[in-house]
Amino acid sequence: MRAVDIIEKKRNGNKLTEDEIKFMVNGFTKGDTVQDYQMSAFNMAVYFQGMDDEEATWMTKAMLNSGDILDLSKIHGVKVDKHSTGGVGDKTSLVVAPLVASLGIKFAKMSGRGLGHTGGTLDKLESIPGYTIGIKEEDFINQVNRIGIALIGQTADLAPADKKLYALRDVTATVESIPLIASSIMSKKLASGADVISLDVKVGSGAFMKNLDQATKLAELMVSIGKMCGKKMSAELTNMDEPLGLAVGNSLEVIEAIDTLNGHGPKDFTELCMEVSAELILDSGLAKSHEEAYKLALRQIENKEALHKFVELVDAQGGDSSYILNPDKFPKAKYIVPVTSTKDGYVTRIDALAIGHASMYLGGGRAKMDDKIDHAVGIVLNKKVGDYVEKGEVLAYIHANKEDVSLETKCVFDAYAIGDTKIQPKLILKVVK
Amino acid sequence: MRAVDIIEKKRNGNKLTEDEIKFMVNGFTKGDTVQDYQMSAFNMAVYFQGMDDEEATWMTKAMLNSGDILDLSKIHGVKVDKHSTGGVGDKTSLVVAPLVASLGIKFAKMSGRGLGHTGGTLDKLESIPGYTIGIKEEDFINQVNRIGIALIGQTADLAPADKKLYALRDVTATVESIPLIASSIMSKKLASGADVISLDVKVGSGAFMKNLDQATKLAELMVSIGKMCGKKMSAELTNMDEPLGLAVGNSLEVIEAIDTLNGHGPKDFTELCMEVSAELILDSGLAKSHEEAYKLALRQIENKEALHKFVELVDAQGGDSSYILNPDKFPKAKYIVPVTSTKDGYVTRIDALAIGHASMYLGGGRAKMDDKIDHAVGIVLNKKVGDYVEKGEVLAYIHANKEDVSLETKCVFDAYAIGDTKIQPKLILKVVK
Repeated sequence: MRAVDIIEKKRNGNKLTEDEIKFMVNGFTKGDTVQDYQMSAFNMAVYFQGMDDEEATWMTKAMLNSGDILDLSKIHGVKVDKHSTGGVGDKTSLVVAPLVASLGIKFAKMSGRGLGHTGGTLDKLESIPGYTIGIKEEDFINQVNRIGIALIGQTADLAPADKKLYALRDVTATVESIPLIASSIMSKKLASGADVISLDVKVGSGAFMKNLDQATKLAELMVSIGKMCGKKMSAELTNMDEPLGLAVGNSLEVIEAIDTLNGHGPKDFTELCMEVSAELILDSGLAKSHEEAYKLALRQIENKEALHKFVELVDAQGGDSSYILNPDKFPKAKYIVPVTSTKDGYVTRIDALAIGHASMYLGGGRAKMDDKIDHAVGIVLNKKVGDYVEKGEVLAYIHANKEDVSLETKCVFDAYAIGDTKIQPKLILKVVK
Repeated sequence: MRAVDIIEKKRNGNKLTEDEIKFMVNGFTKGDTVQDYQMSAFNMAVYFQGMDDEEATWMTKAMLNSGDILDLSKIHGVKVDKHSTGGVGDKTSLVVAPLVASLGIKFAKMSGRGLGHTGGTLDKLESIPGYTIGIKEEDFINQVNRIGIALIGQTADLAPADKKLYALRDVTATVESIPLIASSIMSKKLASGADVISLDVKVGSGAFMKNLDQATKLAELMVSIGKMCGKKMSAELTNMDEPLGLAVGNSLEVIEAIDTLNGHGPKDFTELCMEVSAELILDSGLAKSHEEAYKLALRQIENKEALHKFVELVDAQGGDSSYILNPDKFPKAKYIVPVTSTKDGYVTRIDALAIGHASMYLGGGRAKMDDKIDHAVGIVLNKKVGDYVEKGEVLAYIHANKEDVSLETKCVFDAYAIGDTKIQPKLILKVVK
């Protein structure tokens, strides 16, 4: 087998065999039979010619098998996981994980730490004093068996082929390929060992997928790959034409998650948490219909069992759970600066990426891997899409630990589009199963 | 400027600027700002998105400027050159060069030595005892000024960027891209310094361009690039559904060229030589019409001036010109083995590539750069497309210096397609100016 022939075959629009795809991924990962410059030409050919579901599944499996695969077989019962393609203000795991765990479903999640405008799930959890993400695999499994939930940092070397491949795609303009995105995400998800997986694919100008058509294709492909690998799959396509919920920033988002677990979270964020939870409950076999699963999810909020599971999680991982029961204890930012509207009208759009950047400039996210995160800072929206705003009214508050927030103010102000038409924002655009 | 942005721009189907193309070619050639894996992704993007005439010209110029450019300004008069995309049995330069030179047109050609089923022009010339291709640039210019013609080996470092780029394309399945082929050929042609250039683009199953449509696009693009660089251009699209002429092999082809200069060459080969010569004569301003130019070309054969110019060339470059005047002197191969037909019918096709391979197996071409060439061996066709052949009649003769030619016999036999329909072969399919 020669790399050049496989590249040519894909370039000509032909379907590859599993062996050919394995040859490319393994040869590239080892760096012997497939050179970087061949893999990048291959990626570009895939960009133009695509891959069918089987090819993408083989690609996923080849990357999955390049590294460690978590063995969760010692965890009793159904193991679930969720993944989001990355949104601003996305703290869904902090609500969904304790909610489903409170029903006896096992939520065992290892997260990597990435770059981003806002912190990741691990950064958010670390804003709870004492919470530790560094837990050995054995203790991780024991904790899930004991209390049904663990949210820790990645210890294993999951899908190293994907890591190497992504770095190459990043500098060769081949990131935006649906089969390459799908196999990248799914190789890591499958390596995490869950039986039931829920995916949240963000759509919109602030997201990776700019339109519903592309996002649907991505979601369908990932669901298909997961199913071919024996997993129960669901994917929600959700709108990213504004940040999710009101809070953007680490402890601000934890507080909003606690509010939601208490039953008074923002409407859009609560809706997404209930929907994702319902899908996981349904796929875990705890309900016969989506409606029943949804009711079960709501009940776990009302009876505070989801909240108590979150308290249990924080206790188990060394965190001070008094912060969960009394969120006022979280340290506040020194300055809270309002950003006001200069005209009357309806909010028609809030550029999520711009809000994310503002939060990063405040110190709430990482531009480089060794940047330190300030957990207290961020943005809290006062107006969402569809709200009416009068001239002089507050659009959002900047929570800062520095005095000069002129750049962040401009970012937030510019992020708001205000017009004459009242828009009814729709968060969940589609569900793919 | 960043390579990834330029790759993305081309990937998205947008037109690049001259600076962007320069950045890619220069950065890749130096190996600093553009990595191999970026150039290969770029090439694949060009494969799918193409380049317009201007972009291909900028690409050509960037490669042209990466190395030496021959300064032929010291040669008086119009300098012409010709290039063929590579055919089996193509000895056109050996006739056209002395023919046009005999009219006062300057033919100053430096050839590289490449791999191939059959030898290149240099190998063919080296079958003339004493002929030397290693001549210094100054002597080369003096010779052209003195006798109007020189055919030597490449001394200068012409278009090194193309050399590096081609090596990369070869292992990344990006050879078959019309703008990349056109800029590769034209960068070397333009570096050779001629004012008038004639291109021979081979078409057919045995050629690089499989169909007339693709070949026309390539020819048009090369003509356009040449014109944008101030050259007089013409291109013939010629049929490669059989070898050109009858002889394939080094001294066998020289002998056929001498026959043609004597006015009794094979019909198809003579026709092509007259056509190419006529285009060069017309573009050099020595004739007012193609018809007049064509007549002039014929006249130089009839009055033997073309032949005498070839003798002069051989003398000037140290060769024994008695071989030209008496081709019987050329050493013969030990074995001449006929390949016969097993049925009656018309020859409908002769796989040129298979004939080329047979010649290479005999030792007439190079598979590796350091392979030695046997000048005497090769194939001489006895039947061409359109000829009727009876069972037991000779299709072709194998000229070999080894006893066992079973492989070559099979190659030649299989190369002949024999059917019921008499085909009128058409050599020159189209002329692009």
